[in-house]
Amino acid sequence: MKNGSGYLKKPRILPKTPKIKNIDIFDLINYYAGSGAYNGGRLVEACNIFENMIQEDVTVCLTLSGALTPAGIGGFINQLMKKGVVDFIISTGANLYHDLHFALDLPVYQGDFRADDTELLKNDIVRIYDIFLPNQTLLKTDKFVQKVAKTFHTNSPVSSASLHHFIGAQLWKKGKKPEYSIMATAAKYDVPIFTPSPGDSSIGMNLALLKMSNKNLIIDTDLDVLESVAIIYNSEKTGAVELGGGAPKNFYMQTQPMLSQIMNIDTQGHDYFIQITADAPHWGGLSGATPSEAVSWKKIKPNQLKNNVVVYCDVTIAAPIIFSYILSKGFNRTLKRLYKKRFEYMDKLNNAYSQV
Amino acid sequence: MKNGSGYLKKPRILPKTPKIKNIDIFDLINYYAGSGAYNGGRLVEACNIFENMIQEDVTVCLTLSGALTPAGIGGFINQLMKKGVVDFIISTGANLYHDLHFALDLPVYQGDFRADDTELLKNDIVRIYDIFLPNQTLLKTDKFVQKVAKTFHTNSPVSSASLHHFIGAQLWKKGKKPEYSIMATAAKYDVPIFTPSPGDSSIGMNLALLKMSNKNLIIDTDLDVLESVAIIYNSEKTGAVELGGGAPKNFYMQTQPMLSQIMNIDTQGHDYFIQITADAPHWGGLSGATPSEAVSWKKIKPNQLKNNVVVYCDVTIAAPIIFSYILSKGFNRTLKRLYKKRFEYMDKLNNAYSQV
Amino acid sequence: MKNGSGYLKKPRILPKTPKIKNIDIFDLINYYAGSGAYNGGRLVEACNIFENMIQEDVTVCLTLSGALTPAGIGGFINQLMKKGVVDFIISTGANLYHDLHFALDLPVYQGDFRADDTELLKNDIVRIYDIFLPNQTLLKTDKFVQKVAKTFHTNSPVSSASLHHFIGAQLWKKGKKPEYSIMATAAKYDVPIFTPSPGDSSIGMNLALLKMSNKNLIIDTDLDVLESVAIIYNSEKTGAVELGGGAPKNFYMQTQPMLSQIMNIDTQGHDYFIQITADAPHWGGLSGATPSEAVSWKKIKPNQLKNNVVVYCDVTIAAPIIFSYILSKGFNRTLKRLYKKRFEYMDKLNNAYSQV
Amino acid sequence: MKNGSGYLKKPRILPKTPKIKNIDIFDLINYYAGSGAYNGGRLVEACNIFENMIQEDVTVCLTLSGALTPAGIGGFINQLMKKGVVDFIISTGANLYHDLHFALDLPVYQGDFRADDTELLKNDIVRIYDIFLPNQTLLKTDKFVQKVAKTFHTNSPVSSASLHHFIGAQLWKKGKKPEYSIMATAAKYDVPIFTPSPGDSSIGMNLALLKMSNKNLIIDTDLDVLESVAIIYNSEKTGAVELGGGAPKNFYMQTQPMLSQIMNIDTQGHDYFIQITADAPHWGGLSGATPSEAVSWKKIKPNQLKNNVVVYCDVTIAAPIIFSYILSKGFNRTLKRLYKKRFEYMDKLNNAYSQV
Repeated sequence: MKNGSGYLKKPRILPKTPKIKNIDIFDLINYYAGSGAYNGGRLVEACNIFENMIQEDVTVCLTLSGALTPAGIGGFINQLMKKGVVDFIISTGANLYHDLHFALDLPVYQGDFRADDTELLKNDIVRIYDIFLPNQTLLKTDKFVQKVAKTFHTNSPVSSASLHHFIGAQLWKKGKKPEYSIMATAAKYDVPIFTPSPGDSSIGMNLALLKMSNKNLIIDTDLDVLESVAIIYNSEKTGAVELGGGAPKNFYMQTQPMLSQIMNIDTQGHDYFIQITADAPHWGGLSGATPSEAVSWKKIKPNQLKNNVVVYCDVTIAAPIIFSYILSKGFNRTLKRLYKKRFEYMDKLNNAYSQV
Repeated sequence: MKNGSGYLKKPRILPKTPKIKNIDIFDLINYYAGSGAYNGGRLVEACNIFENMIQEDVTVCLTLSGALTPAGIGGFINQLMKKGVVDFIISTGANLYHDLHFALDLPVYQGDFRADDTELLKNDIVRIYDIFLPNQTLLKTDKFVQKVAKTFHTNSPVSSASLHHFIGAQLWKKGKKPEYSIMATAAKYDVPIFTPSPGDSSIGMNLALLKMSNKNLIIDTDLDVLESVAIIYNSEKTGAVELGGGAPKNFYMQTQPMLSQIMNIDTQGHDYFIQITADAPHWGGLSGATPSEAVSWKKIKPNQLKNNVVVYCDVTIAAPIIFSYILSKGFNRTLKRLYKKRFEYMDKLNNAYSQV
Repeated sequence: MKNGSGYLKKPRILPKTPKIKNIDIFDLINYYAGSGAYNGGRLVEACNIFENMIQEDVTVCLTLSGALTPAGIGGFINQLMKKGVVDFIISTGANLYHDLHFALDLPVYQGDFRADDTELLKNDIVRIYDIFLPNQTLLKTDKFVQKVAKTFHTNSPVSSASLHHFIGAQLWKKGKKPEYSIMATAAKYDVPIFTPSPGDSSIGMNLALLKMSNKNLIIDTDLDVLESVAIIYNSEKTGAVELGGGAPKNFYMQTQPMLSQIMNIDTQGHDYFIQITADAPHWGGLSGATPSEAVSWKKIKPNQLKNNVVVYCDVTIAAPIIFSYILSKGFNRTLKRLYKKRFEYMDKLNNAYSQV
Repeated sequence: MKNGSGYLKKPRILPKTPKIKNIDIFDLINYYAGSGAYNGGRLVEACNIFENMIQEDVTVCLTLSGALTPAGIGGFINQLMKKGVVDFIISTGANLYHDLHFALDLPVYQGDFRADDTELLKNDIVRIYDIFLPNQTLLKTDKFVQKVAKTFHTNSPVSSASLHHFIGAQLWKKGKKPEYSIMATAAKYDVPIFTPSPGDSSIGMNLALLKMSNKNLIIDTDLDVLESVAIIYNSEKTGAVELGGGAPKNFYMQTQPMLSQIMNIDTQGHDYFIQITADAPHWGGLSGATPSEAVSWKKIKPNQLKNNVVVYCDVTIAAPIIFSYILSKGFNRTLKRLYKKRFEYMDKLNNAYSQV
């Protein structure tokens, strides 16, 4: 019989009566699993892949693109770091800048995407889609960045991870609500935070301003490249949870060709890949590129279809579900504290390269 | 002070530590509410608006577009009808056709969107994105449609609601799993199901086939227009939960201009509007058109911003959340049984029109 | 050498200096062809496939979804019919209703998508994204539809193609600018226009209104199914240019399963397929479904990759380019005048079916 | 009369018979202008705004995001620089890296987005959606980057613009086809090219590799911030043509808050804004953020609606049209040669800041 061909091996879809009392996060995931279709199905795969990453001691990278911290996603991310299930972070600068408001207890408000921007301008309010920030929130954050940066003493250029670690540590000393901040939390748990574009945010702009006066703090993006690649090189298995695409996605993905294409070190690519995005493959850009395309670049291991998934969804909807699922499962890994291992890891990478 | 202008009246966004044990559906919604941003924020608004519709005894229409029943969404919809919180349905024909498979206990399988379609063709499997259906599932469903249609005796054209009610009733007699079917459940609870395009599905194709032999069953879409408009006219308040856009969205929205523009009966538009869609306004089509645009057409009442929302999301992710929330709340309205009131309502509409 | 594997057989991409004087439509297409990448590349494929369809005497269907006629696309479509390169049309009702304004010389204005809809409502203007229509344009069109429908004498239900042909013919008698109208032009050249959802537009609503008074004109969608399938059955080769997706796409695609799945007549699917859409496959719906998925349904012939293309683009950008290219090529086919062949074709289909 | 309210002041839309012989780029733009609707309408606005920018001597920035140079868009960009209508560029690193292949006459091929990536991997071919690059193209480009970087002598960190200028100049000496390269062309015409993320591409990776051996070339992103802001500060009027969004869009937009928010220098925002994107506002990110949202940030001047436009379209379709239009118009501005003015402009900015 033709249908015995092996194509019909997954479960039947059945529109069963859903549970309607005391529905918990597992019931919801079970519902999605029972359908398995479209992005509801992908959401379950993302949960399962994340779970597998945790259980197989994969070094997990979280990437952040889009205006996510202003939307309050930090609460989840902090828990993920604390539980040892996110080992390092790659973020746009803007997500890190807006993260500071919360640590400094400066207000960020729910707003309305239909607001009149000329009126907002008159009222000293800036808008991120449907989020309103009083100008004072920005200006006070700027002052904090400048003050902290002035106290960062170094004789040589540093990676952005060093800067972010320093700022995070200062938040514990000077911030009113450091527990709200992913930069502070990352510093506490030695989770390195890289940004591919250190000049491309108000943090970068404040550093640039200092440069015009007295303080010359240089972020050397090559160090970010090397530190991030060193983490990948020194990990048994690697995988990412990508919230959005953008430069952070590219920066994570390129760690593999850095090894194989540039350094001529034998690698086959990352082991796991989860992306939540509203982009699409057919526009051709890297943000929407499929895990399959990444296989050709040795960015993702071949023949591992089941370890890769793209959930086409707004991050603010999908991420809380996945994170709630993971946290509810009670995972608790020993912290990798990769920030402290940077130099050791870079030495090993250096050694490997010297033998190529 | 400028910021006292009234723009900053919504809650502050705070990245609080999320609950990570025993997370239930209300916790999840609370999390989204705490952010309020982007489509996570819209999801909460959708929950709240649906809740308001139920509490204010609004006549609630559910519209279905896209291949939703094959994905198994029927389980939720059946409960919504049973609990009296969905009063009538407008659906594409395809959603109704594929609903039949479940009632007939014919298999629909989880599949893979990356499958080789030429191979599937060889193996007599048809694909809906990542859902696989054996050809036999289609062919047996076709036979059922033809058999049932032959027993539908009528001297005059009927509305699609009549046909769907008849099929639904037959499913309780001849189907193995009628409880899986929205068409069967709708018949049980006298929930009318309209389709704007009765010829545009395998149900329509099977009727067309019968026409070539001996059985001439005519669906008169004008009757669908009149019956649906009569429901709106005879309702105190009206609102919709639109899953996708397409013809069903248009068919629901046009009930208002049918009254105001075509019949010259004074109306201002629907009271409530929820849409889940992956479309966007800037392509210009009705599927992605905003509730605001609908105001200009008297399709939606003006100045009621808070009663309207579009959630930009895959229905298979967002709908289970909204529906779980609503069902968990334990709402239980007296069934409106609109199917039985069709003729009474049309008489009243006729009377009103005769007096214009 | 590995690269001799056959993967690198298409042209090299070279960023040559573009022509910058007297650039004509062929230069533009050449530019896209020189790149071949992303949707610019798809646009060229669409031009080539359309060209092949014309040269191989394919029966070409044009489908219309989204609010295209209000945007003025009719001018191109009229030429395509006149030149015999579009043989029949499947359209949403709304596109046909709004087409009437132009024939009746009723104004449709360029507007602004940022307009205040409550203000527009007060000013009796309805909005389609960035198009403004005075209410009078609708009301006068409604009167015309009612007046014409009253003069349509028939003893039995008709297909929508019959209705549209009748209206089109009347436009030549009573319309001020029939040459602007695709319905009028289609009537002139005997191009059948089907709608899958005859009740789902102001045309349908006006017919429904007449039903409330004195005039009972019934559109039998089964006839639309049979007439459209008969065209496919009686054509050597078939193909479509799909502007958008929606019910018209489904209605066209289902003509093949109507033959193979429902009537048990051996077919393998359409020969050619062009779609311009802003939808995407990963939402699971038919609007965004790939030609590949259609292969599993016998909607499109297998192993004919090069005859199918999806251009991800707003129709208002891509269609004028493709149509300008085709028209500039000077194609001029003998008109098929399929409207006149409906009954002959249906007889042949009946015969075929009687022998299954 | 209500309709005299001023809302109906734009032209009527009329589906006129299009020109079908000798259609040139102006005919095509005229057609779009005649419709004015949806993204076809936006395309005309983009042409007009670009034209205005040129005529009013606006300093024009071009931003590049997504994999555009591999698709061959460089040919147009080179002409725009030569004609003096693009004054500086902000690009992702990947676009600059892939630009090098063409200058070095290394092959980039048209491919197929449906290719089997595991097979491509076996055949040493990497894929960018539907573009195929032999691994050798990458490896030879890497060698060139390393060779050139080793000859770049500097005692202090430099901006990315300096690096790109140096590479561009070297391409004229050592490249086989420098005329194909935007980096070479930019160097020739002293058009500065900034990248917000110098480590985030194979250029950055090659520099990082050199750092592991003997060559320490540091890109200081703060210098990029200052040089780009200095250009804005020293320009009478400013505007951008944004191809895609991403970090380059953010980097351009932030030049204004750098002045107003960070440096406390009075500005109101950019004068003109054109973006071509497939993103959407409702996902909340900066890539899809509207010009209106930018007004609240003082990134774009308020009350200048007509000077801003977003074209929702694949860049590979829309950009060649806009660029062909602009080039065909024969504009020829005196080159601004901003690269040479960097230090002078930064001095002036420094002076201004010292007086705040």
